[in-house]
Amino acid sequence: MIERLSFNQITAKYSTLKECVEACVRHGVGWIAPWRDRVQEAGLPDSVRMIRDAGLRVSSLCRGGFFPAATQAERLERIDDNRRAIDQAAELAAPCVVLVCGPAPHRDIDGARTMVAEGIAAIVPHARERGVQLGIEPLHPMFAADRSVIVTLAEALDLANQFDPSNVGIVVDVFHVWWDPRLYVELRRAAGRILGVHVSDWAVPLPGIVTGRSMMGDGVIELDRIRAAIDDTGYDGPIEVEIMNEKIWSQPIDQTFEQIVRRYRECM
Amino acid sequence: MIERLSFNQITAKYSTLKECVEACVRHGVGWIAPWRDRVQEAGLPDSVRMIRDAGLRVSSLCRGGFFPAATQAERLERIDDNRRAIDQAAELAAPCVVLVCGPAPHRDIDGARTMVAEGIAAIVPHARERGVQLGIEPLHPMFAADRSVIVTLAEALDLANQFDPSNVGIVVDVFHVWWDPRLYVELRRAAGRILGVHVSDWAVPLPGIVTGRSMMGDGVIELDRIRAAIDDTGYDGPIEVEIMNEKIWSQPIDQTFEQIVRRYRECM
Repeated sequence: MIERLSFNQITAKYSTLKECVEACVRHGVGWIAPWRDRVQEAGLPDSVRMIRDAGLRVSSLCRGGFFPAATQAERLERIDDNRRAIDQAAELAAPCVVLVCGPAPHRDIDGARTMVAEGIAAIVPHARERGVQLGIEPLHPMFAADRSVIVTLAEALDLANQFDPSNVGIVVDVFHVWWDPRLYVELRRAAGRILGVHVSDWAVPLPGIVTGRSMMGDGVIELDRIRAAIDDTGYDGPIEVEIMNEKIWSQPIDQTFEQIVRRYRECM
Repeated sequence: MIERLSFNQITAKYSTLKECVEACVRHGVGWIAPWRDRVQEAGLPDSVRMIRDAGLRVSSLCRGGFFPAATQAERLERIDDNRRAIDQAAELAAPCVVLVCGPAPHRDIDGARTMVAEGIAAIVPHARERGVQLGIEPLHPMFAADRSVIVTLAEALDLANQFDPSNVGIVVDVFHVWWDPRLYVELRRAAGRILGVHVSDWAVPLPGIVTGRSMMGDGVIELDRIRAAIDDTGYDGPIEVEIMNEKIWSQPIDQTFEQIVRRYRECM
């Protein structure tokens, strides 16, 4: 099973890309999902080289999106930035850019949803040209005000379905979707549209909002049931462990990798 | 407009029922929604008397629910407790008991949803007998693990629709539902089922999880739009201000009431 495990770099927020790549190699993890700020820090050509030389594959690039903005000029700027993310993904041989769609600039959440659809439409031609897919990640509704107005699987799918499945799909993060009464219905509908899967867990009490995620097995998410439903859609790509958690961030990276590999085997 | 304003007692968590009743009178607020712990503290007959003598009306009693539990014995205990809540509501002339449905005892969220439906079915006859309605309140999905497995308007409505509308309806709290892409569709469907409305706001950054609510106008919720959609359903009952916020809790109750009355006029 571990051959599908991918390390999402935010899980070791305080480590460089190089440190993450080396830890992947030490722990037999064959996939990595780099974040753009760390790629920029290392430099794009060096990032490409170090990932390739380590024999790793890239599962996705985090992240594009953040389309809504108060002015047309700002929205065009965001679109340009997304085109750059696509270029970086192409260089890194990342099949997909994860889209965290962004919050509303003011109170008009439905207006912001329209800006998201327009933003995606604006970057699809470039994504197609560069051979990179766009993965719309619905975020948990607790992030609706500050990170993404796209907050349910249904909504993400409806949006993705406006585009060709070879260009636009969705990314399913269990932390964001586990609570949804329509989860399994929407997962069935998502067959052929799933471009990525993120795993972590929802512990009680939640250790934070942005930093509220826990190691698989430490929370209430029915990981095995969700995993089975995703398998049933035919998705057989990498499964990223993406955990934002201050305690995990502050421990040595090898401890994090040991936990990830063990819990991935146990829970996924 | 202020004639529909109701003071939900949790907004002054550290005040007794008597202090809240007196503040309502001082500030011209004609409705109150007491919490059971504070009613118990004051004693039920004294609570009934002080509310009646003050000329206040009760908009709802908070709260029943919490149906799911690991064992049948515990589930029956919860059902008994809900019957007591119904009795207390009847004594207080509260038209409705607000149901916060409870979390799953283990990981099986859909199993817990079934326990909620069974729990409500078990108390409906008693509610009918006592002339008290049951208001299912969908909670924000960030409370799915520790407070309520009922997390969307659609789900709450589907559940309510299993029962006679004279016995079971829903309570719409803007803090819990504002993010939902199906909000306005579901509100239209809720016509005739709305038993109560709660207002507050969602500030960025959120000041907490359980204590994450803010005064109307201090956040991103489209209060006027939601209010209009609720009006369109024909709901013309009280509108409760329910705010759980450490800063508001720690200020003098008259300051809280002044803010509430002013913001209610401005935002609702």
